[in-house]
Amino acid sequence: MLLSQQDTIVALATPSGAGAIGVIRLSGKEAITICNAVFKGKDLSKQASHTIHFGSIHDGEQIIDEVLVSLFIAPKSYTKENVVEISCHGSGYIIEKLIQLFIKKGARAAKPGEFTMRAFLNGQLDLSQAEAVADLIASSSEASHKVAMQQMRGGFSNELKKLREELIHFASLVELELDFSEEDVEFANREQMQQLIEKIVQVLGRLIKSFELGNVIKQGVPVVIAGKPNVGKSTLLNALLNEERAIVSDIAGTTRDTIEDEISIQGIKFRFIDTAGIRDTEDIIEAKGVERTFEKINQSAIILYLFDAEETKDEELAKIIKELQEITIKNNSQLLLIANKSDKTQSIVPSEAMSISALQGKGIKELEEKLLSFIQYSEFANETILTNARHVEALQRCKAALERVLHGIHNPVTSDFLAMDIKESLHYLGEITGSISTDDLLENIFSKFCIGK
Amino acid sequence: MLLSQQDTIVALATPSGAGAIGVIRLSGKEAITICNAVFKGKDLSKQASHTIHFGSIHDGEQIIDEVLVSLFIAPKSYTKENVVEISCHGSGYIIEKLIQLFIKKGARAAKPGEFTMRAFLNGQLDLSQAEAVADLIASSSEASHKVAMQQMRGGFSNELKKLREELIHFASLVELELDFSEEDVEFANREQMQQLIEKIVQVLGRLIKSFELGNVIKQGVPVVIAGKPNVGKSTLLNALLNEERAIVSDIAGTTRDTIEDEISIQGIKFRFIDTAGIRDTEDIIEAKGVERTFEKINQSAIILYLFDAEETKDEELAKIIKELQEITIKNNSQLLLIANKSDKTQSIVPSEAMSISALQGKGIKELEEKLLSFIQYSEFANETILTNARHVEALQRCKAALERVLHGIHNPVTSDFLAMDIKESLHYLGEITGSISTDDLLENIFSKFCIGK
Repeated sequence: MLLSQQDTIVALATPSGAGAIGVIRLSGKEAITICNAVFKGKDLSKQASHTIHFGSIHDGEQIIDEVLVSLFIAPKSYTKENVVEISCHGSGYIIEKLIQLFIKKGARAAKPGEFTMRAFLNGQLDLSQAEAVADLIASSSEASHKVAMQQMRGGFSNELKKLREELIHFASLVELELDFSEEDVEFANREQMQQLIEKIVQVLGRLIKSFELGNVIKQGVPVVIAGKPNVGKSTLLNALLNEERAIVSDIAGTTRDTIEDEISIQGIKFRFIDTAGIRDTEDIIEAKGVERTFEKINQSAIILYLFDAEETKDEELAKIIKELQEITIKNNSQLLLIANKSDKTQSIVPSEAMSISALQGKGIKELEEKLLSFIQYSEFANETILTNARHVEALQRCKAALERVLHGIHNPVTSDFLAMDIKESLHYLGEITGSISTDDLLENIFSKFCIGK
Repeated sequence: MLLSQQDTIVALATPSGAGAIGVIRLSGKEAITICNAVFKGKDLSKQASHTIHFGSIHDGEQIIDEVLVSLFIAPKSYTKENVVEISCHGSGYIIEKLIQLFIKKGARAAKPGEFTMRAFLNGQLDLSQAEAVADLIASSSEASHKVAMQQMRGGFSNELKKLREELIHFASLVELELDFSEEDVEFANREQMQQLIEKIVQVLGRLIKSFELGNVIKQGVPVVIAGKPNVGKSTLLNALLNEERAIVSDIAGTTRDTIEDEISIQGIKFRFIDTAGIRDTEDIIEAKGVERTFEKINQSAIILYLFDAEETKDEELAKIIKELQEITIKNNSQLLLIANKSDKTQSIVPSEAMSISALQGKGIKELEEKLLSFIQYSEFANETILTNARHVEALQRCKAALERVLHGIHNPVTSDFLAMDIKESLHYLGEITGSISTDDLLENIFSKFCIGK
């Protein structure tokens, strides 16, 4: 069940912890009244929207803090309600005291995402835009930031809205046919309708496909670094990270646990996973490490298999490569063969392998380029990229319904079947932007937000 | 050397970490110009002070975030310079991008405390008020908050200012005497001067004495809980903390390490230190624990010595109590004898000991009252309490100089000696409020602030 929208809610909007200032946010009909009741300074109820006022906040005799109060008068605020932001000294004690005071005066502690949920319910944002707010806060690379920003600013919503409007036009015509069903008329031009739906199906197909990239952008690309012990996996990771995070040692089998680290290459985040190496071993701890290695390999989008350039003729190597190739086919992942220690040897490496020297940093730039080439980023340049699994699912269902409509146009089905499928497709499009929504759906989405947003 | 005040400085003012919003602060002549150069929305240079403006910030083609910009036009700001606060989405990526962008456009990253240092240098706050800002942010109990708030609002400064002004009056009269030194006149009435200086010395004495309490309020009162193994020290700590933090077990000698925890009793913070117990032992690890126990006992303001109510006739107990009494005399600390397990026994306890049952929570309230009674809080109710070691040192030097003046009045010394000592006392008073300051002093004070304040 949705929380009451009648309440005035309060929460800390800035991260907790030591800082110069903290910002407490109040939203709701009584926001200004509640703040005014404890504020010594100008009468806040008589001030204009978007103005800032210095004063102090008192709990009876006790002065709690000197603050700056920012006023946003409905509907000119994030939530479209009255909003007051109190900028106070960044002491946990003061922040706690202030929030408790506002609660005592009639506010209620806000639930996670409740401010943004109100912004949605009051029509400030549609649902996909609201979801993008959380993505934006979580964004940690240029690409994920760009995608979230585009979605928050309504790029994706507008695209869907246009499709939906065109579809609604035909839906209403088909509905009209139902009213005249005994007369067997066709108000909706079947050829035009087919063209439109084919176009929409195509757009949806592209959007759904973009999720592959979108997911990678949002989560980062998982790349496992595999290879025999002591081949230089940790050194390679360090060369990529440009810092000493994994333990590097000359003793074979040093890296027993998997180490994860992220680097951003041209705005795309790669999650690198170092492994304990692949070799038959009697050592129980190390055997566990090998098991984990294969687990990680199965979860990765890209497998970097590192081998010693002097060992290219090794039959064991050929066997491992074959095994990895089978894994990549099964998982639809990519295999990248890398001959390391090119500084030490002149041996010939297989043509499909890259040559690098992790120690000397040779070939690292080329390796990064190669990694980027696996990501089909350019294909979607300046186009909408989906990053949200919920949206993809809705689009897939919408597409399926539209494909049934197309099938119906080519086959003798009655208008009511067409109408049903078109309605269903409209429903799924509407779910994305929230023009159709349930309490459960909203609860589910906003509970993942942080408190104060 | 002081940093240039000509620069426009920028820093994140809110704590780093995940949150709904982050606030970036710019201060300096160019603050508005720099922000305006990257802001799309209204022309910020044409807006009034204390107003808020929605818009977006762009780095060339790329939009970095949608933000709210708050304007404070000099001198109506914290630093008395132009100040712009940018409220953005709380993503580390966005915050970093924005700060980098402002630096690219001409701002410089602020040093710790640089905003408050500018507020001081521009006359917004005096030095002791500026120091109170840091104390206020760090305040974690009602008492420390109250003291910092009073100091920030100028209570202490005003008290000093009044004394200083009265003293300056006499100083100038004595200086005048020097100009007429050959004529042996006395412009400064010695009797009035003596009265004034005696009054000031008395006030300084009270202020210096208040530091004992002030320090306790700021740092918390260190209380060690000592006693033989298995007497219930951890249980007592838990009863006080009202939560299970220390490991409690029936095996003698469980608590090998010292555990510290804080509770606030009527607004005063007590730092409780559990110990490994005091007894002769062969166990090396435990012996180390005992050694640490005595270390902790020596550092504490209050020693809670816990003993089993059934063991009151124990000669060993009497010996330990005597030993602890000597320590308290040496360290000017307090000893509190507590007979535990009053639930299990009817034996008579020494009259100076309190009876409690840690397990049943009996006598805990009385124990808290007793602890509070050691803190001479009421003595200083509604009076200034010093919490800053720097201030105490300056006041002590000022007092010493004034005592030399008093000595000089009673003894035949020439006016120039009196003048020198009065000047010295004025110097030390001025150091506290910063009317006299050196670059080193300021650097030292503000480098302890957090960045963004």
